[in-house]
Amino acid sequence: MSKKAVVLLSGGLDSTTILAIARQQGFECYAMSFCYGQRHEAELLAAEQIAKQFEVAQQLLVPIDFSGIGGSALTDHTIDVPETPAQGIPITYVPARNTLFLSYALGWAEVLGAQDIFIGVNAVDYSGYPDCRPAFISAYEKMANLATKAGVEGQHMSIHTPLIDLSKGRIIQQGVALGVNYATTVSCYQADAVGRACGLCDSCRLRRQGFIEAGIVDPTRYVTS
Amino acid sequence: MSKKAVVLLSGGLDSTTILAIARQQGFECYAMSFCYGQRHEAELLAAEQIAKQFEVAQQLLVPIDFSGIGGSALTDHTIDVPETPAQGIPITYVPARNTLFLSYALGWAEVLGAQDIFIGVNAVDYSGYPDCRPAFISAYEKMANLATKAGVEGQHMSIHTPLIDLSKGRIIQQGVALGVNYATTVSCYQADAVGRACGLCDSCRLRRQGFIEAGIVDPTRYVTS
Repeated sequence: MSKKAVVLLSGGLDSTTILAIARQQGFECYAMSFCYGQRHEAELLAAEQIAKQFEVAQQLLVPIDFSGIGGSALTDHTIDVPETPAQGIPITYVPARNTLFLSYALGWAEVLGAQDIFIGVNAVDYSGYPDCRPAFISAYEKMANLATKAGVEGQHMSIHTPLIDLSKGRIIQQGVALGVNYATTVSCYQADAVGRACGLCDSCRLRRQGFIEAGIVDPTRYVTS
Repeated sequence: MSKKAVVLLSGGLDSTTILAIARQQGFECYAMSFCYGQRHEAELLAAEQIAKQFEVAQQLLVPIDFSGIGGSALTDHTIDVPETPAQGIPITYVPARNTLFLSYALGWAEVLGAQDIFIGVNAVDYSGYPDCRPAFISAYEKMANLATKAGVEGQHMSIHTPLIDLSKGRIIQQGVALGVNYATTVSCYQADAVGRACGLCDSCRLRRQGFIEAGIVDPTRYVTS
């Protein structure tokens, strides 16, 4: 029987690629997606479609209520998504988001008896988010092994970040080689209801640049095109 | 102006005591409570009452959906709460619960500009939960300082666990000295709608023993009394 893995699947380019990688490594994949009032809900529809394409064992959609917490352009609809690059940590940063996502994944992994969690963080094109850096992932993994019953009983929990050192172009090349259809994925921070990208936000810029770097035709549907 | 602290407040004996301690240490307290389908919802009503008594700056009630994850007698209503002590990690253990609670607190602390989080974990009467041990808390704190914008900018995030080494009796003595009215608090895993305790579950047993050890009259309202 294959080993189980929990894969954090947002429906974006990176998380879809890690699902393809986890499957290629022989894991039985359990996809976990979050509905947290993000502006780009089209991402979630994409996540469902991708979970089906990759025949995951189960997809779990977890609602997270950030409304009382606030503080980010992605979840607080009174803050505009910027359309010009900024210095430092951008306003699209959601406080403790990856910490929270990994913690839900950890709970589910424990119940499933899985010892492997995949997350599509990337430290190259990381947009300045602190919780995408290797030092954070390594500290999270140490904590996770002390947090859980499985850890206490001597099973090691691994946090896999196969994209952490790759450029966007390399990620796309790897995904295409594994059969990912990037037309299904949605990366834009303010995609419209049918999943068309603005082409202007940080996430769109990085993605567009990635296809150019990869030498692959960009299949993204842009509002402006 | 006082420093802000996020205090995890369940409405039980331990968390109410840490709220009293945080206030006594001069913090402006922000109480965070979770509604996660726990059997003992009377705890939440207690938490609201306690937040008012202690005049917190704000109380945030965060809904968490564990239903898809399952695996614990506290959140999965098809599993019975045991009424006799068991060896090892009990079925009332909720996978990754403290990890998740701390991660929500971390996000809120970051938005509030707070650098202090209080959690009422206890390693003496800890019922075998792995995420109540000092090694876990210390690993969590290290991770938290790598996860956040505040951490990157050089502010230290502290996880305070003032009860971690205290017996239940000592906790009660300390709380009483700080003016806590334990009649308001609810610890029972299966309290009834008006907050009366079963007197039989692990949590009730530890609490009852604590009042005996403290030499203080137990104000708990029991169903059986």
